[in-house]
Formats: sequence, structure tokens, C-alpha cells
Amino acid sequence: MQGVLSGGKVIVTGSEADAVAKRDGRRRGQLELEEAAGLLETDKIAIRDEEGSEIDPDEFLKRALAISPEFGLRYLVYNDLKERGYVVQPGGVDFWLYPRGVKPGEKPARYFIRILLESDTISLKKIVELLVLARNMRKEPIIAVVDEESDITYYEVKDAKFEKSEARKEELKIKVKASLFGDRVVIWDADLADTLYRTHFYGNLTKEKRLLLSFLEAAYLMRKGMLEIEVAPQLATLNSQPFEQFIEYASTIEADFADKYAVYADLMEKGQMVKTGFKFGSHFRVYKAMQLKHSLFLVHVLSEEHVFTLPELSRAVRLAHGVRKRMIFAFTVADGIRYVDVGRMKL
Amino acid sequence: MQGVLSGGKVIVTGSEADAVAKRDGRRRGQLELEEAAGLLETDKIAIRDEEGSEIDPDEFLKRALAISPEFGLRYLVYNDLKERGYVVQPGGVDFWLYPRGVKPGEKPARYFIRILLESDTISLKKIVELLVLARNMRKEPIIAVVDEESDITYYEVKDAKFEKSEARKEELKIKVKASLFGDRVVIWDADLADTLYRTHFYGNLTKEKRLLLSFLEAAYLMRKGMLEIEVAPQLATLNSQPFEQFIEYASTIEADFADKYAVYADLMEKGQMVKTGFKFGSHFRVYKAMQLKHSLFLVHVLSEEHVFTLPELSRAVRLAHGVRKRMIFAFTVADGIRYVDVGRMKL
Repeated sequence: MQGVLSGGKVIVTGSEADAVAKRDGRRRGQLELEEAAGLLETDKIAIRDEEGSEIDPDEFLKRALAISPEFGLRYLVYNDLKERGYVVQPGGVDFWLYPRGVKPGEKPARYFIRILLESDTISLKKIVELLVLARNMRKEPIIAVVDEESDITYYEVKDAKFEKSEARKEELKIKVKASLFGDRVVIWDADLADTLYRTHFYGNLTKEKRLLLSFLEAAYLMRKGMLEIEVAPQLATLNSQPFEQFIEYASTIEADFADKYAVYADLMEKGQMVKTGFKFGSHFRVYKAMQLKHSLFLVHVLSEEHVFTLPELSRAVRLAHGVRKRMIFAFTVADGIRYVDVGRMKL
Repeated sequence: MQGVLSGGKVIVTGSEADAVAKRDGRRRGQLELEEAAGLLETDKIAIRDEEGSEIDPDEFLKRALAISPEFGLRYLVYNDLKERGYVVQPGGVDFWLYPRGVKPGEKPARYFIRILLESDTISLKKIVELLVLARNMRKEPIIAVVDEESDITYYEVKDAKFEKSEARKEELKIKVKASLFGDRVVIWDADLADTLYRTHFYGNLTKEKRLLLSFLEAAYLMRKGMLEIEVAPQLATLNSQPFEQFIEYASTIEADFADKYAVYADLMEKGQMVKTGFKFGSHFRVYKAMQLKHSLFLVHVLSEEHVFTLPELSRAVRLAHGVRKRMIFAFTVADGIRYVDVGRMKL
């Protein structure tokens, strides 16, 4: 194949121009820089500049970089995907990726690829934008992170849905009295403590048969009308809105309490079982209703304004996978809670 | 045993007062609230109030909470340590902890315990304060985190030292020419690329025998006089201070570059091998010199002003342990780089 580097593209000349045009109708015999570099390095094309001098591979890479500073990074990812046996095409949000063995034109691309550096950051808003874009384009988004060693890690990003589970046990018709116990709430009645713990998985039962509830659990049970906190020094005047007052008090202890509670309550309403995910470095571990065997999800609550560093994202996802769970980031938006699932992709 | 709740302590009365006094010389027959509660719940003491009414365990806990809102949390940790077979004493930074089987008075406490909630934060400065305190007291600090399920996770905190390794290979007497390649630096000379990669573990060698260096590696090699970057469009006027200019340019791409470089260079100067820790969610993985088999440490660079959320700390430490490495946090202080090792303690 013969080509001329011109205007930031390589124009294929001669008889093969048609084949290239056919391969990808949109570009009429033009190769993007990454495609041309790939062909040049495997000796499948000879490229000249507009003055007619032949350009060797090293020189081509240097010229491509001068044309586009992004070329270096893009070419790394392009090559990596090619080596993994994928058809990849410059365009869209950085690249289009086709399923293995599929030729462009035969089928549409399945994914688009957004390239980032290890040292970049990405905001939650930007991730949501990628999801919106993906839905509009009917593609799935992949984030490719090039690390300092030029290794590439691929992350898939998806909306996560928690469907309302039918398996959820009926609510108990009880009204338990409880006390504030430092930063948690204690139920002194041993029978009720046992019921809430054993059949509804709330709290932690001490050997003295007291049930220790987290503030999240207590707030949820108050909301359900199942729990009443007796006068506590911290809640001096229990007024007619004990739930609101309790949320307010909890927020003085933990600034983000209201955000965490919103996600906790949403998951509970959907029939999920929610326990702390602290040992896994996340706010919640989430079980399918009434199956406390193996939790399937780690859920971490963030502000909608959150900006991830990429090592932070890598750490969360890697840890979740290491314990065979999905990593879900949850945040409050105008019309409820949004859940985003980020997972490592083995391409 | 008999005692009276008075002035926020339980005063042991009668013949056993001396035994309590002997057990812990400082307090002359006084029990702290956690100690008294522990004895009361195991039926080893009867406690009356100053009016002479006997106080049952539930009532005692309620009164203790009214005296000190911290009591709830402290009692959870106190009980947990007791159940694990330790001698623990209220005092110091929350508690003193003695090695198993040792009685207070026989030997000094080995640890002090600082109690935090899952929902708390702790600043790096606070962690350093604990280390200073520990050195002054000749103790080791433990951070006990009580999670929402009232489970307790213990973290040990230590200064980490990287000793200068003798095994480090001699520096090469070379001066390599390289180009900026997007956000990395490329060495085109295949022989030099091979040498730097195979014998000194720099960068990543492509199949075309080009060596891709990270900006950190490139800056370090420039500093050593081993690397020269040819004129690049991004560094329009390579002046008499190419190293400084390069650091400045790198900082425009990554705001924290200078901090990361300071830690990278410090570790390299100490003869460690440093590669990216991205896949483990940290900035660096660190190998003993010239042994690229299994890295021993993950190092994450933070600003001295960093404030940890506790799930964040839990996530980092858990991930490091999961891949059999120590988690080290590094930050720049007035006289160099400080390394703090945080690990989970199995008590």
C-alpha cells in the first residue's frame, strides 16, 4: 500500500485506495494517524510526505506527535487492542471497538473507548455523561487507563439497577423502645432484640441479648414506625418529628449522614439487605433479600460532585473483584438515587 | 465485690478495695466505668448509687452514658479486647493494652488504643501526632475502628524506613537522547533502550524496541545526567535548566507531579526499585533492589494536609494485605519524606 501524509491523515493512493474506502465508507481512502502508524510498523504501507520523501516509522511517530499531542497515548491503546485481536477504529469518543472477529461495516461497533492517564482525574458527572452518550449512541462505554508503565487497564461502566425484591419479609407490627448508646442505638428488650436480629438481620446482638443498631438502621426503623427512642440527653426535647430530629442529630456526628441514609433507605425499600461494607472499604455491602450468605455488591456513597483520582477508582474496583463483588457508586440526583457499576474488563 | 457509683467512678468498698488498689496502684480502689460495667455484667460486683439503691446492669449502662457520651463506644472496644483475652485498662489515649497473660504492674503496657468510628475521619497530621506520642510514651499505637455493625478492626501504625540498599547497581555512564511522546518519554535507540530496561528496570520496552519511560523515570534520569530530551514542541526553548523545566512541564499535566517525584526520587536514591502501583490503587509498588519478583510495599503519596475517611484507610490496607504487601503512605515534610505504615492487626 502507498500513502501520503497530508493534513493530519494518510491518503492512500493507487489501487488500494478503493479497498480502504470500502473498508470504512466514511473516510474515502484516508487513514487516521494510528491506523497508518500500525500499518507502517508492520510493513504494510509505505508513506511519503507531500514533498515525496519516504517517512520511516520513527519519523512518522515523531511527525504524528507534532500533529497531535494526543497521538502517543492513543497509539498505545490502539496497539494494545489490536494485539488483543480486536478491530478498533479511531473515532467517536477516542475509539470504536468491535467484537472480536467482526469487520467494520458488517456490524456496528459495540463499545466506545475513552482514554485516560493514570494521573488524570474523572468526575462522577463525566462518568454519567459517558453513560448518557453511550445510551444515545447505543454503545457501551469503556474507560481505558494507561498507567505509568504503559500498561492499559479497561473498565466497563454501567448503570446498576436494584429491582424491588419480592422475597422481602413482611414488616413487623411492633414498636420497640430504644436508647441512644453513644453513636448507636440500643434495644434492651431481649425478645424484640432477638426477633429483629434473627429474622430481619438488623444490628448486632451482644451476648447480653441487647441489640445494637447503627444510626442508619435506627433511622429506618423510626421511619417505619417500628422504633421509638426514649428521651436521651442528646435529644433533649423529643418533639413531634422524632425522625427528622434524629436525622439532624446524626448529621451533627457524621456530616454525610443524610446522603448515606438516602441510599440505605432506597436499597432497603427495594428489598435488599444492607450491612456495613467497612471491612471492604465501602459504605455498604448489599445482599439479596434474606440471603446473608454472600453479599454481591459493595456500594459506596458519593456526592454528585465527586472527582475520582484513577488510583482511587482502581483501588475500589480491584478490592471488590478480589472478594467477588461488584463495585457500585451511589449518589443522590434530582429524582432519586443513581447507581453506577464500574468493573474491570478483561478484554 | 461491692462498689458505689460516685463522681463518674465506682469506688470499691470493703476488704476488696485493697486488692483493686494493688492491681493498679494509681487509682486506689476506684474502677473506671468500663471496668465496673464489665464486672457488673459478669456478676462480680454489686453496685449501689450514693443513695444506696442497687443498680442493675442495664441501668448502670444508661447512667454511665449519661455521665460520658463516649462510654458506649469505649465499652464496646473494652469488651472486645477482654473477650480476646487481653488485659486492657482505661487511660492514656483511650486505653492501655497489655500483652496477653501479663498483669498490669508486672510489665508496662505495650500499646495504647485510640478509638474511632467508621464514620470518623482522621488526618495524616493526627496519625503523626499519635506516632510522636507513642515514641514519647514508649508504646505502640493502635487505632480501633468500630464499624456500623459494632465490629472492631484494629490498625497498627508505624514509621516505615527504607534503608539505603547496597545491592543497587552502579549507575550507567550514558547519555541517552529521548523525545517527548505525549505524556511519556521515548528512547528510540534500541540498544540503550534494552540496557535501561533489562538491567535497570526502567520503563516499558515495546516490541519495536523503543523504551517508554514515565515522566517520573525520565525526570530522574535527567537529574542523574543520563537522559537528554531533544527539542520538543511542548518544551519550546530548552534552556540551561532542562530538569527544572521538565518538572514544570510535567506539573502542568499532573498537578501533584512534584510531590510524586520527590517520593519517587527518594525511594530510588535509597536503592529501591519503584514501579507504578496503579493496578493496586496506589502510586507505587516498591521492590527490594534488583529483585523484581514480588514487590513488598505499596506506596501512596499524599499531601501532609490529607484527611482520611476510615473506609478509605480500610480499603487501602485491605487491598495491600490481599496482595501480601504493606501499605505505606508517603508525604513531604520539612526535612524530607516521611513514610507511615498502616496495617491491620489480628489481635
